[in-house]
Amino acid sequence: MSRRYDTVSLLTDYGQVDEFVGVMKSVIRDLAPHAVTIDLTHEIPPHDVRAGALALARCVQYVAAGVVLAVVDPGVGTTRKAVAVEVAGGEGVFVGPDNGLLAPAVQMAGGATRAVVLTNTEHHLPSPAATFDGRDVFAPVAAALCNGVALHELGDMIDPASLVPGLIPITRTEDDELFAEVLWVDRFGNVQLNVDPDELDPTSPRFQLRWGGQGAQVRSARRVLTYAEVGAGEVGLVVDSYGLVSVALDRRSAAAELGLAAGDQVVLVPLGEEPPRGPVSTPVAFRR
Amino acid sequence: MSRRYDTVSLLTDYGQVDEFVGVMKSVIRDLAPHAVTIDLTHEIPPHDVRAGALALARCVQYVAAGVVLAVVDPGVGTTRKAVAVEVAGGEGVFVGPDNGLLAPAVQMAGGATRAVVLTNTEHHLPSPAATFDGRDVFAPVAAALCNGVALHELGDMIDPASLVPGLIPITRTEDDELFAEVLWVDRFGNVQLNVDPDELDPTSPRFQLRWGGQGAQVRSARRVLTYAEVGAGEVGLVVDSYGLVSVALDRRSAAAELGLAAGDQVVLVPLGEEPPRGPVSTPVAFRR
Amino acid sequence: MSRRYDTVSLLTDYGQVDEFVGVMKSVIRDLAPHAVTIDLTHEIPPHDVRAGALALARCVQYVAAGVVLAVVDPGVGTTRKAVAVEVAGGEGVFVGPDNGLLAPAVQMAGGATRAVVLTNTEHHLPSPAATFDGRDVFAPVAAALCNGVALHELGDMIDPASLVPGLIPITRTEDDELFAEVLWVDRFGNVQLNVDPDELDPTSPRFQLRWGGQGAQVRSARRVLTYAEVGAGEVGLVVDSYGLVSVALDRRSAAAELGLAAGDQVVLVPLGEEPPRGPVSTPVAFRR
Repeated sequence: MSRRYDTVSLLTDYGQVDEFVGVMKSVIRDLAPHAVTIDLTHEIPPHDVRAGALALARCVQYVAAGVVLAVVDPGVGTTRKAVAVEVAGGEGVFVGPDNGLLAPAVQMAGGATRAVVLTNTEHHLPSPAATFDGRDVFAPVAAALCNGVALHELGDMIDPASLVPGLIPITRTEDDELFAEVLWVDRFGNVQLNVDPDELDPTSPRFQLRWGGQGAQVRSARRVLTYAEVGAGEVGLVVDSYGLVSVALDRRSAAAELGLAAGDQVVLVPLGEEPPRGPVSTPVAFRR
Repeated sequence: MSRRYDTVSLLTDYGQVDEFVGVMKSVIRDLAPHAVTIDLTHEIPPHDVRAGALALARCVQYVAAGVVLAVVDPGVGTTRKAVAVEVAGGEGVFVGPDNGLLAPAVQMAGGATRAVVLTNTEHHLPSPAATFDGRDVFAPVAAALCNGVALHELGDMIDPASLVPGLIPITRTEDDELFAEVLWVDRFGNVQLNVDPDELDPTSPRFQLRWGGQGAQVRSARRVLTYAEVGAGEVGLVVDSYGLVSVALDRRSAAAELGLAAGDQVVLVPLGEEPPRGPVSTPVAFRR
Repeated sequence: MSRRYDTVSLLTDYGQVDEFVGVMKSVIRDLAPHAVTIDLTHEIPPHDVRAGALALARCVQYVAAGVVLAVVDPGVGTTRKAVAVEVAGGEGVFVGPDNGLLAPAVQMAGGATRAVVLTNTEHHLPSPAATFDGRDVFAPVAAALCNGVALHELGDMIDPASLVPGLIPITRTEDDELFAEVLWVDRFGNVQLNVDPDELDPTSPRFQLRWGGQGAQVRSARRVLTYAEVGAGEVGLVVDSYGLVSVALDRRSAAAELGLAAGDQVVLVPLGEEPPRGPVSTPVAFRR
């Protein structure tokens, strides 16, 4: 007796201009009419497996139980494996290429409990080409899982430890300098770093922010709780909605103004106590 | 006994590149699996509360009964209130920030019957930050409403009259000049004005269109029923699908060619009877 | 007794910035709550009937049984007919303007079995204008079909042969030169030609690719099975996921690098056997 699923969450680099996503959903609707599809995003930059892996990891704790179909797949049609990876003892199954795209999300979901290479073509669509596995392999497999097809019927079971791992950059510290990396720039221009708030010196409300390698740029940045707290001309460090430190301005794009993009290196150095602002030197004395 | 809802209509400035909307839908799917979500739009320009309020007002008469979740929220995390506003005696509930975004739509739906500030955190998600209320407050509250949670359980009931009002610009007339404002430019470049067709002199098929302040530009514009009626090189005044006067060209962008954008001031002056066109002076004589 | 439908697949040039699509879905949700909508695409270039017709034809074999609502409609409000076209004896119904948009898809679905002009306004929404038939005519008619309203109740039945035909460009051959046309450029920059693989000389692994009219450009292109097979600096000819020949690079945009766009003319000429590459002159000798 196999588990049935009724939600397929989708993440791809297919964009929303062409009909690729619509065709995948049509296939799922046709094969598993009871399944509801949810678009996480389809605007991963083309072929950018790292960006897709990070976005999927950001989503994973909120994704509805069921199938997650993810496709960023520059090696489509080659020897890279197509896989389905079960997590949480069957609460969820990730379907996609085995190129590192799924790995961080799988890890955040508690790790893979089982995995299968999608070699059983009975659960695929016939196709004139090997260039659109989203439609011909991953969507029909997601539908099959929704219909209760068991994982082992989809192909050859493999050791989950043999899956391609994901690479999440980690920070390093030299003296009091924290070397970090930009993971993501969102629509509003907020710059997410791979920095946990606990890595920042809690006694320092301000930090030097340095980036740009040789001709390095330097700004002072202040820890705040909301975007609206960041003053005009000021740079904020905000714990973002995923619990990571981000560089932000108020209602403007920090990425555009500071010239930061995903993958850039950034250094944070504590600057100690807040300097007094203007004539009132102890404005906090009246607060509780 | 509280009413249950089964549709959540969504309007935000979150865009469709990041996973923000997908995560909100995942939360709703998880908490209220029976609810169907409908995207009105997520491409309100970032932080543009006015544009969001106008778009929501354009939608409201067509929106399915149920919950409307709207988020354009530059003050997220600050003291601005998060609210749910009931209309039409419970046929619909608007959920979002109390910053004027909801007000015009609420008014078009007949006005608020009840309102609540969303202070009961039992119906929110735990969150590492105060920067994504769409996910952590508004989506779970929308799901709670779908599940039949009563309005008063969501927080402190408030007088609807205390909600932040919306500001819709109104026209003014000086002599025979009608001073209007561009409300919206759509994908096709049609320029919607805040002008009711009844405000235009019905005896004048043509109007002078003036805009641009000091170095004002002037064009003649003709009232027509469809875009296709607008001749090459001509400017049309079309009653658009929302019943307002819009400036339009045939298959080209009026906004791009005339240099008009949302918020621009425009003056309309009646020009009287249509002049004869070329040698055939009475082409309409054969029509019925 | 009429057939009921539970899926409405949508294709328009409305874009996803404005609320047009959301309003259409709201209308369908309101009138036929059981119907599920699937977005094929809404990013057909404004008014580009040919591009819409080609996209719809690419989708049609995957579209779920039910109603297909397609709108690319520069003549909205004019005398162009609004129609519903039944295919496959009722398995599907296409709803949209009669301007050639539906024709190629209808033909691929086996041809029209019945057709009706949507003159019965009882199944339309009242409207202040004649500019948004997607909302006021096509969406409510799609909902009516989902609710089991019979085709002949929607208006005046017409001979399907009287519908405006679609125009798909065909290739022609002069000597060994194949004159083709670019049908579509996808998100990844792959350039789909109107060329069936069977039209290419099977003995020639390489072809001369010529385009650009007077100041013609020429490149050599090699037949490959996957994008990843295309070497750096090389141009590939890949049978794409719709079974047509496309011009492609590996992880880069062929359209951008070669300067090709939809509608461009392209000539393919067989170049015969693969030239030896470097010192190993018979690398294929070891293959089976």
